[in-house]
Amino acid sequence: MRIPDLIAHKRDGLEHSSADLEQLILGFTRGEVPDYQISAWLMAVFLKGMTARETAHLTLAMAKSGDMLDLSSLKNTVDKHSTGGVGDKTSLVLTPMLAALGLTVAKMSGRGLAHTGGTIDKLESIPGWNPELSEGAFLEQARALGLALVGQSKNLAPADGLLYALRDVTATVESIPLIASSIMSKKLAAGAHTIVLDVKVGGGAFMKTLEQARDLACAMVDIGRESGRNVRALLTDMETPLGYAAGNALEVREALLSLRGEGPTDLLELCLELAREALLAFGFSEEDARKKPLETIESGAALAKFRAFIEAQGGDPSYVDHPEKLEVGPNILEIKAQSTGFLERIDALNVGRAVLVLGGGREQKNEAIDHRVGVEILKKPGDAVLKGELLARIHYHQRGLERARELIEGGLHFSSAPVQVKPLVLERVS
Amino acid sequence: MRIPDLIAHKRDGLEHSSADLEQLILGFTRGEVPDYQISAWLMAVFLKGMTARETAHLTLAMAKSGDMLDLSSLKNTVDKHSTGGVGDKTSLVLTPMLAALGLTVAKMSGRGLAHTGGTIDKLESIPGWNPELSEGAFLEQARALGLALVGQSKNLAPADGLLYALRDVTATVESIPLIASSIMSKKLAAGAHTIVLDVKVGGGAFMKTLEQARDLACAMVDIGRESGRNVRALLTDMETPLGYAAGNALEVREALLSLRGEGPTDLLELCLELAREALLAFGFSEEDARKKPLETIESGAALAKFRAFIEAQGGDPSYVDHPEKLEVGPNILEIKAQSTGFLERIDALNVGRAVLVLGGGREQKNEAIDHRVGVEILKKPGDAVLKGELLARIHYHQRGLERARELIEGGLHFSSAPVQVKPLVLERVS
Repeated sequence: MRIPDLIAHKRDGLEHSSADLEQLILGFTRGEVPDYQISAWLMAVFLKGMTARETAHLTLAMAKSGDMLDLSSLKNTVDKHSTGGVGDKTSLVLTPMLAALGLTVAKMSGRGLAHTGGTIDKLESIPGWNPELSEGAFLEQARALGLALVGQSKNLAPADGLLYALRDVTATVESIPLIASSIMSKKLAAGAHTIVLDVKVGGGAFMKTLEQARDLACAMVDIGRESGRNVRALLTDMETPLGYAAGNALEVREALLSLRGEGPTDLLELCLELAREALLAFGFSEEDARKKPLETIESGAALAKFRAFIEAQGGDPSYVDHPEKLEVGPNILEIKAQSTGFLERIDALNVGRAVLVLGGGREQKNEAIDHRVGVEILKKPGDAVLKGELLARIHYHQRGLERARELIEGGLHFSSAPVQVKPLVLERVS
Repeated sequence: MRIPDLIAHKRDGLEHSSADLEQLILGFTRGEVPDYQISAWLMAVFLKGMTARETAHLTLAMAKSGDMLDLSSLKNTVDKHSTGGVGDKTSLVLTPMLAALGLTVAKMSGRGLAHTGGTIDKLESIPGWNPELSEGAFLEQARALGLALVGQSKNLAPADGLLYALRDVTATVESIPLIASSIMSKKLAAGAHTIVLDVKVGGGAFMKTLEQARDLACAMVDIGRESGRNVRALLTDMETPLGYAAGNALEVREALLSLRGEGPTDLLELCLELAREALLAFGFSEEDARKKPLETIESGAALAKFRAFIEAQGGDPSYVDHPEKLEVGPNILEIKAQSTGFLERIDALNVGRAVLVLGGGREQKNEAIDHRVGVEILKKPGDAVLKGELLARIHYHQRGLERARELIEGGLHFSSAPVQVKPLVLERVS
């Protein structure tokens, strides 16, 4: 079909075939279909939507636009994806748990952008840890350890990066089929059979309402079904940052505490729920799926797996055993309660922005970051707070302190009456 | 506003301000707003529409993107525009009528493209006639004669050409606000106070249904009202070619016959109706508006005006007095009726395409054309036809004869019973 006819097809609300979408997406990736045609098509998709089948075909076409990683030599491969939140160090705790449970995590992770962090940035807080492995070494480590974690290859679903760059400047970002295909194209190309999704909802997340998040989760689970993968999703609260810490080294420190059973309750709960979804996907019983993940913490198996993983990728394992060695700060500002009351709400977005202004995140790709800086919020919504009690610590170095303080103080909301707290896991979609 | 925010505004169905539209359109014309943003915006306009006020603001922004011709030194300026049909030589007859009535026609005209002809191409059938005048000479001739006709300046509403090129490849052509602003931006920039529009409806026209044509006419009349011009429109039938002749020299010959009162009824009727609209716009009484245009034909005033106009622009006036001197053909193929019956329908599109394949039109801008070739259909819908009677003549030279013959034969539809014929003028909008 001629490209203008393909655009007209979507403009008129009709369904594209798999062949149509490959022509459009692969042509665009090869530079044969110009930006201006794709952006008109993106607006038509934004306004007219896509069926589940069509979204799956779009996602596969995007996945095929670059390298497709072949994990077929590995058993029980599982991947995890979070739509991005503040203080979200889940992958650091969950992936060694899954490996300790006998599953194989051969995973590519991203770096942080804007107010959300990235797993690769966090792990680089550990001296020596290297996110670059050859494909052979990556597969071999995954086979031997059950856990290998690298940065995203440049040629993983390149159509996604090209499409995203256009969507960003043409007001076509907030479209469920386009968001779902963007996320899932990289997951399909990265090869795992089972994919567990953590779709964040709330002020600190991309999806602001439960309804949007549910639509996105359903779209991604449908893509999995249409393309022969096993995909399950949790919708989880992201009004509040996860755990207490936000900032790279601070988050690694908190993850290490969690792996020894000494971490924040919400973080542990989320890891157990996600691990449960993964085990259910592999046919474990309800009881085992509930019980076995926690055993990997109690037995130290998850921590041992994490230590072996850090060492295999060149990291200094002494940091795993001595989290206090991780360099944070170097300066600390303490924020104390002005009056007695109940903490009602912590704006995750403010906390994420505070880390950004302190230099712990990046506005643009490839900016250098300071792994040491960040914020700890020591209370959770619902907690009673006494006047003068310590609420938060800002770990800073030279830049951003005043703005970060404003953001944190402006992001903590108090009530004089006790507060009802929302559950962390809001819904599950599978 | 940031450009993505402007796009989002239209995407969400909101109304743009005049400032928004100038930012978008003038920025695009200067090369500051890239194609890919404009094409996303065009798709949003296509799917979400525009209010009358917004369409007028868009049109003015497009008009301002280049030179604005100042006709304020001329009195009673009037322009005419047809949305393009087959055999439409109306301007050749109407403009000298209007000049003979004391109005001033200082007009820019286009060249033919695809199956529709253009006034400049037609006039170039007269040896020596020159479509290029300096602005000073153009205004001076308009002042002295009441009639000057030149090719479109390259810098007339350049935004329109740029937008059209994008619309053509992004499936965003068939949008009423975009079509209306495209036409009217050039008319506003060309400076006339009163504009008479002939919106063609039917198989040979761009607007296929009466409803589409009415929407377009209303949008253009609204643009006039919002921008202080006097705009009136007729919706006229274009199932059937206008007059008998299609092809450049053949149409000039037919126009010259019309100027002496010997032309086809439908062509004369349309010219009288359009002249009437122009006179009504200038406050003439209903009776004068009805009567005076025909008097310019009966008295020979219109023909004299045309002769003076041709001569003023370098053309040989002997062709005006001896239309038979115009070179046509040089070869003729006659098509005769296969059986007795009634002519039911002539596909204007087929006739236009026949002229094109004979070499009398162009597929691409700047292609050379052969002014001599074309088609005469000697019967009109409703006419009784006897077996063996002459139906059509194809004037050809070397190329396209077989295909033209197929098109003409395939475009003539017969009935065994008498046929009811539609009126030429379907509606008026003012």
